[in-house]
Amino acid sequence: MVDLEFIRSLIQPADTKIVFLILDGLGGLPADSNGSTELEAAETPNLDNLAARGICGLHVPVAAGITPGSGPAHLGLFGYDPLKYQVGRGVLSALGIGFDLRSNDVAARGNFCTVDKDGVVTDRRAGRIASEKNRELCALLREIELPEVQLFVETVKEYRFLLVLRGDGLSGDIADTDPLQVGRKPLEPRALSAEADQTVQLVDRFVEQAREVLPEQQPANMVLLRGFSKRPDWPLMKEVFGLRAAVLAHYPMYRGVARLVGMEVLDSGETLGDQFAALREHWNDYDFFFVHVKRMDSAGEDGDFRRKAELIEEVDPWVPVLMHLHPDVVVVTGDHSTPSQLKYHSWHPVPVLLWSEHCRTDGVKKFGERACMAGGLGPRLPAVDLMPIALTNALRLVKFGA
Amino acid sequence: MVDLEFIRSLIQPADTKIVFLILDGLGGLPADSNGSTELEAAETPNLDNLAARGICGLHVPVAAGITPGSGPAHLGLFGYDPLKYQVGRGVLSALGIGFDLRSNDVAARGNFCTVDKDGVVTDRRAGRIASEKNRELCALLREIELPEVQLFVETVKEYRFLLVLRGDGLSGDIADTDPLQVGRKPLEPRALSAEADQTVQLVDRFVEQAREVLPEQQPANMVLLRGFSKRPDWPLMKEVFGLRAAVLAHYPMYRGVARLVGMEVLDSGETLGDQFAALREHWNDYDFFFVHVKRMDSAGEDGDFRRKAELIEEVDPWVPVLMHLHPDVVVVTGDHSTPSQLKYHSWHPVPVLLWSEHCRTDGVKKFGERACMAGGLGPRLPAVDLMPIALTNALRLVKFGA
Repeated sequence: MVDLEFIRSLIQPADTKIVFLILDGLGGLPADSNGSTELEAAETPNLDNLAARGICGLHVPVAAGITPGSGPAHLGLFGYDPLKYQVGRGVLSALGIGFDLRSNDVAARGNFCTVDKDGVVTDRRAGRIASEKNRELCALLREIELPEVQLFVETVKEYRFLLVLRGDGLSGDIADTDPLQVGRKPLEPRALSAEADQTVQLVDRFVEQAREVLPEQQPANMVLLRGFSKRPDWPLMKEVFGLRAAVLAHYPMYRGVARLVGMEVLDSGETLGDQFAALREHWNDYDFFFVHVKRMDSAGEDGDFRRKAELIEEVDPWVPVLMHLHPDVVVVTGDHSTPSQLKYHSWHPVPVLLWSEHCRTDGVKKFGERACMAGGLGPRLPAVDLMPIALTNALRLVKFGA
Repeated sequence: MVDLEFIRSLIQPADTKIVFLILDGLGGLPADSNGSTELEAAETPNLDNLAARGICGLHVPVAAGITPGSGPAHLGLFGYDPLKYQVGRGVLSALGIGFDLRSNDVAARGNFCTVDKDGVVTDRRAGRIASEKNRELCALLREIELPEVQLFVETVKEYRFLLVLRGDGLSGDIADTDPLQVGRKPLEPRALSAEADQTVQLVDRFVEQAREVLPEQQPANMVLLRGFSKRPDWPLMKEVFGLRAAVLAHYPMYRGVARLVGMEVLDSGETLGDQFAALREHWNDYDFFFVHVKRMDSAGEDGDFRRKAELIEEVDPWVPVLMHLHPDVVVVTGDHSTPSQLKYHSWHPVPVLLWSEHCRTDGVKKFGERACMAGGLGPRLPAVDLMPIALTNALRLVKFGA
């Protein structure tokens, strides 16, 4: 892995197009000890054909043994080392619900929790209240007034909400108030640097008023706040890779992460058909397209092996539609594995295929975990290496040194 | 990858010999989508036999997706991280023409260019003038006199020349005068650190006098200078690897890069036969030999698939000649790929085989790109790891830790 500044120093303009087709949670595990993974069980003649004409492997999203969240996993695919380019939990919560976070906003992730009469936390998730109840509580908290800043309180899901302060001179250098265990009181908001002193006073005032507003709302009678953060100011894909980049994603989280690296958000409708129609419509306007397909991840989290395989099969016929646009480089992979056996994101390396006119083909004839292990990209390619490999196959990098 | 100091801490003396046989631009691509690469198409029974008795793989010269120049590519093979050990363009130009650069010299790469009557650059390469014309112009520039330093102006090729200042207290911390685009004037020489103030005055004087000398020489009526640099002062192979090292190369660039890491230059005549005769002659005098074969790279740059394959075939009979000398470790690889399909250096990983009595053989029976993908060195070995692996197979590294 090399840093973004090094890649930037080698960029040359080109009239080539790169498409990353990301099947969320693609990697899997066999349903039984001799069986196939979800991807291997799926009938994917078009992906198999592309694999045979391309170069395959498995990528490691963050580092050996690390199970990534969606944010870090996608940043790696975009060529941003997820260990270096870290996003605060508050910002990720904002991205996840499509909140239009501005550059000076400070965001935090909130939990509704339960405290006893002494103020000691007895349930950090307030009995996992329903999202409907959460919306009522957020409406109450939204009434809180803070001097000189605008306050946003938005429902995320169940016991989780988003807090955003908007104003001048705010800082995200504030420690979590969540004690992370029951039997302790919520921690006082505390500045982690001098420039957060003013913001801490505002947060403190918010927490105090929440404490006054919520007591009637058992079990959700208090709030805990984590991951205070501002929208990061990172180098954008246009600057470091010379790419006009766009995202076609149905879920706000993925659009949000893509926006952090400077991708433009295109309307991708509701279906795969809508996404590929939008891709064709905007084909001439961008150099790089991130096409995100979510649903196989959800099937994996539901533990539904067959459904996950079927959803992969549904993507397969769109591959020739994509190739018909004459892209120069196509990468098909997942952001991470979500084996239905585990019902959760996992650390397992993720199948990846890269096709270009200039790739060196290997002997892989089928797009699946075991076949990809023998591919030319190797069984453990760092995900962050994919973008330089895609750029170079698109003839967008000059030679390093004479 | 570990750093040179760590390797140095583990070195033990040994009476073993290592040979790196480097076939320049060895890696390739198939001529058609179902075919073989140049190396795969070549008949190489001796290399195949050595591959079967050794361990194979593909190496990544610099980093994923990066196409290396000859300098960085060879430094990686010698165990020097090319991202850390960077050579200035001026120094590389000097190495390329075999100029005997001394440790206090400052070198720059020059372009003859065309400027209009206002001094604005209209062609950065002066219409790619012939090398013969270049020699005339260099003779003119050599007449320039600078106080207290010696001036060298040497033809490289076409519009390119080498400028060297020799004297005391010179610094290479000077910004390029090449504006890198037409429609702008050449930039003034500018010091990048205080210690370059005096050198900048000399460069400024050189440029001013060149401006006076050249106007009659349309289209080459001005000069642009890039990559001011001094010969780097790196740890040498004797110090860090304990190796008395020698180079057998027909081209000055490779002898020059080898000298940067402390190799001694041996007379290697004109032919492969001369090179291997010199190898035998000096066999007892050194521990490490870098044998460089250039011509398959040139065939690749010419886009001549068949010729590149034939040139690889010409090397093959010399493998048993080499083995007859009883080396302890032999590495056969390229510095980078030069697929005849692309007619240029490329980013594709490079086939590598390592043979020693102590290597762990894999199942690879043929020395070629696709076969090597399944080899024990893996499909993406960092080039810089080859030297420690060679050293340890030569029993020259002690155990790390108790």
